[in-house]
Amino acid sequence: MAQHNRSEELFDKQLESLSNAIENQDSKAAIQLLEVVDLDRVILLVDRLDTEFRKQLFELLDPERAAELLAQVYDFQGGVIIENLEPEKAAEILTNLDSDDRVDLLNELEAKDSTAILEELNDEIADETRRFMAYPEGTAGALMYSEFVSFQEDMVVSDILDDIQNNQGRYSEFGIQYAYILDTAKRLVGVLPVRNLLFAKRTQLAQEIMIREPITVEVTTQTNELENLFEEFHFLAFPVVDSKQRLLGIVDREASAEAVQEAATEDLLKVQGLMGREELRSMPLHLRSRRRLSWLSINIVLNLISASVIAFHQDTLEAVIALAVFLPIISDMSGCSGNQAVAVSMRELSLDLISPKEFRRVFFKESVLGLINGTFLGTLIGSIAWLWKGNPMLGLVVGAALALNTTVAVCVGGLVPLLLKAVKQDPALASGPILTTITDMCGFLLILGLASLTLPYLV
Amino acid sequence: MAQHNRSEELFDKQLESLSNAIENQDSKAAIQLLEVVDLDRVILLVDRLDTEFRKQLFELLDPERAAELLAQVYDFQGGVIIENLEPEKAAEILTNLDSDDRVDLLNELEAKDSTAILEELNDEIADETRRFMAYPEGTAGALMYSEFVSFQEDMVVSDILDDIQNNQGRYSEFGIQYAYILDTAKRLVGVLPVRNLLFAKRTQLAQEIMIREPITVEVTTQTNELENLFEEFHFLAFPVVDSKQRLLGIVDREASAEAVQEAATEDLLKVQGLMGREELRSMPLHLRSRRRLSWLSINIVLNLISASVIAFHQDTLEAVIALAVFLPIISDMSGCSGNQAVAVSMRELSLDLISPKEFRRVFFKESVLGLINGTFLGTLIGSIAWLWKGNPMLGLVVGAALALNTTVAVCVGGLVPLLLKAVKQDPALASGPILTTITDMCGFLLILGLASLTLPYLV
Repeated sequence: MAQHNRSEELFDKQLESLSNAIENQDSKAAIQLLEVVDLDRVILLVDRLDTEFRKQLFELLDPERAAELLAQVYDFQGGVIIENLEPEKAAEILTNLDSDDRVDLLNELEAKDSTAILEELNDEIADETRRFMAYPEGTAGALMYSEFVSFQEDMVVSDILDDIQNNQGRYSEFGIQYAYILDTAKRLVGVLPVRNLLFAKRTQLAQEIMIREPITVEVTTQTNELENLFEEFHFLAFPVVDSKQRLLGIVDREASAEAVQEAATEDLLKVQGLMGREELRSMPLHLRSRRRLSWLSINIVLNLISASVIAFHQDTLEAVIALAVFLPIISDMSGCSGNQAVAVSMRELSLDLISPKEFRRVFFKESVLGLINGTFLGTLIGSIAWLWKGNPMLGLVVGAALALNTTVAVCVGGLVPLLLKAVKQDPALASGPILTTITDMCGFLLILGLASLTLPYLV
Repeated sequence: MAQHNRSEELFDKQLESLSNAIENQDSKAAIQLLEVVDLDRVILLVDRLDTEFRKQLFELLDPERAAELLAQVYDFQGGVIIENLEPEKAAEILTNLDSDDRVDLLNELEAKDSTAILEELNDEIADETRRFMAYPEGTAGALMYSEFVSFQEDMVVSDILDDIQNNQGRYSEFGIQYAYILDTAKRLVGVLPVRNLLFAKRTQLAQEIMIREPITVEVTTQTNELENLFEEFHFLAFPVVDSKQRLLGIVDREASAEAVQEAATEDLLKVQGLMGREELRSMPLHLRSRRRLSWLSINIVLNLISASVIAFHQDTLEAVIALAVFLPIISDMSGCSGNQAVAVSMRELSLDLISPKEFRRVFFKESVLGLINGTFLGTLIGSIAWLWKGNPMLGLVVGAALALNTTVAVCVGGLVPLLLKAVKQDPALASGPILTTITDMCGFLLILGLASLTLPYLV
């Protein structure tokens, strides 16, 4: 406990020192401070700096050092930093990043910001970056990097070893594990695990010791498929090729695993009502408010639509006011039951355990489950309603409404993600609102409709 | 389209062939079939097999082949398979798995099932497995594997090279990248990247060419910290040591990234109301129903508690029946606003961008945001209520209730995950129900309380 407080005190001091260094334009002091603290503290310091100081820090550091720091923080932190800098300054820093990091950061920005920065990059880097940015999210193209070592197939082992020794510094920077062997048309013809050079004669040709017909992935390969390939073959990386088998880049295990992780995190944020870029509390208030409101505004309209069902049944409700107690319960419980089915469908979709066309399977599996759980919950709530008001018909109405609506909710919840996927929409973002609107309307209709049918027994 | 249908037809045929092979106890046909299809189809086939056939398949295959198949399917599929087998059979198969896969699968089981299987394993493997299983989830200990190559510090390079050449088959199986150098007390004193052997003289000692004072992680290191270390140092793996610097295992980048991904996925399932093990639609109905109900049952009780607020204000509601329309809206909208704040807190906690003790920061950041968004939403809904019934006071009551309750919801939503984390509970599982119960009660109280105070102007 004491230690924890001390570390918080220490952090406050570090933040103050860093702020002071920035205020005094003392880049040496800032660099020194950032070098002595652990990475998690660096990330936290960048998060907690004043927006203005944060900007000044990246202007203060030389581009190489700034790029290093940018590579350390999370992408969405980096995005906020980059978009606040002048495009020239941003381009200078991005030039010093690896190709995949550069692409990731630019993808965090709005189109107009990234375009402005791309214009400031040198032509070669800009072209490559634009090409990499064009590969859609969730494909191998979007995950690959262009830093790899390749040799011509007719090179001899001793020349390759010389090249490796001469370029040790540069190669070890991108952690060389495999070398890629190309023919004269730059088509990939083989892969050479660098450690195989240990067992090779120095006079052999690359093509003699390389692994022929290497397993490659196309730029369009989906992340899911990529994960399966990494699972199936114990390689650290796959070469990414175009349709003519020309080597475009490398995608490694880590990038693939990270992409799956990011997709899961994004889904988590979306199902909880956060659209677009990630929110951190260190972001400007107006941005946070606007992003959250954009989601809430859609929701309130949907809420009004479903509540209109109640408005049309005010007479029934007025006659049996006790029903008003059960309206929010029906709404909330159906939402919960439906969301469980949404989660299972989203999960099965993301694991390719179900195709978006398998409506019948989902409907069958969910309707049976919905009937069972609906009967249980309906009986419970019906009994409570009966006991509370001593009116068995009230219990029947409330119980039947919840039972039926749970069945509906579970089926709708299971099917909506499939439907959205089939029309190429994002299940994480839209399933919840669609589900609750349907089940609210249906639930209110059921309880108030059943009540109006049995009104003589209720009053 | 036509092709897709053909591939579905093909899958149905494969499933039938596999089922037939199992029914006829024809292990050769089953193996042949599983070998010619892609991994994603293997996974789907195992998912779609009848539960009984699935069990028989794993009894039919020889343990080594069964282990291979088990390593290919998802852990939660594997868990279901293993728990259906006789413990002796399960142990036979698990013996053929890598240590980390074995531990992962046993961790999927209930304690009584895993204990039964552990008793059937040979003592050495069982001891190691128990030791590995004891490391808590989310630590390096739970992610490490025990398959690594180590040499004594006084070995010469030529002996090391001989050993590598002699054991090429076994070593390449666990993709050797680093060798670990130990002193006589089995303490880790250095790391030797295998490719460095390329540059070494054959007469040098391991201790001369190894990297000294290697960066190690302790078994208790948290996944988050591990991810930061992988980010900071471009290593493929870290050695995991005990407090006496003895080498216990290896944790690699991939395992670390996967652990983070699994945590995100688990959180996603939990916030949507799925507790415990993952649900697949191929699981038995009673299991799926029971697991979902366990969550719903808690929720319905919480719902009854919050709805009781309405029951206590029936008189007010009877006097102003229009309020009944707004009760579900208040409940749903506050839930949505609060869940956004829950998501941001969960995200900041998982990234270590906030400590569970920073209540004040979260409260300050959220209350301002809540007031802004609440005012917007309250004005909107208040105006609609006013226009609908032509009663400005109704608009004021409804609008003020939503505005205030949004502020409450956003603060509560931001704080609850911190509070749960501080008392070592799981924010993903409990935040939602706690949030909605508090905000429902508060919301109903606000709208009905404000209405009863202004009743003369409402009727």
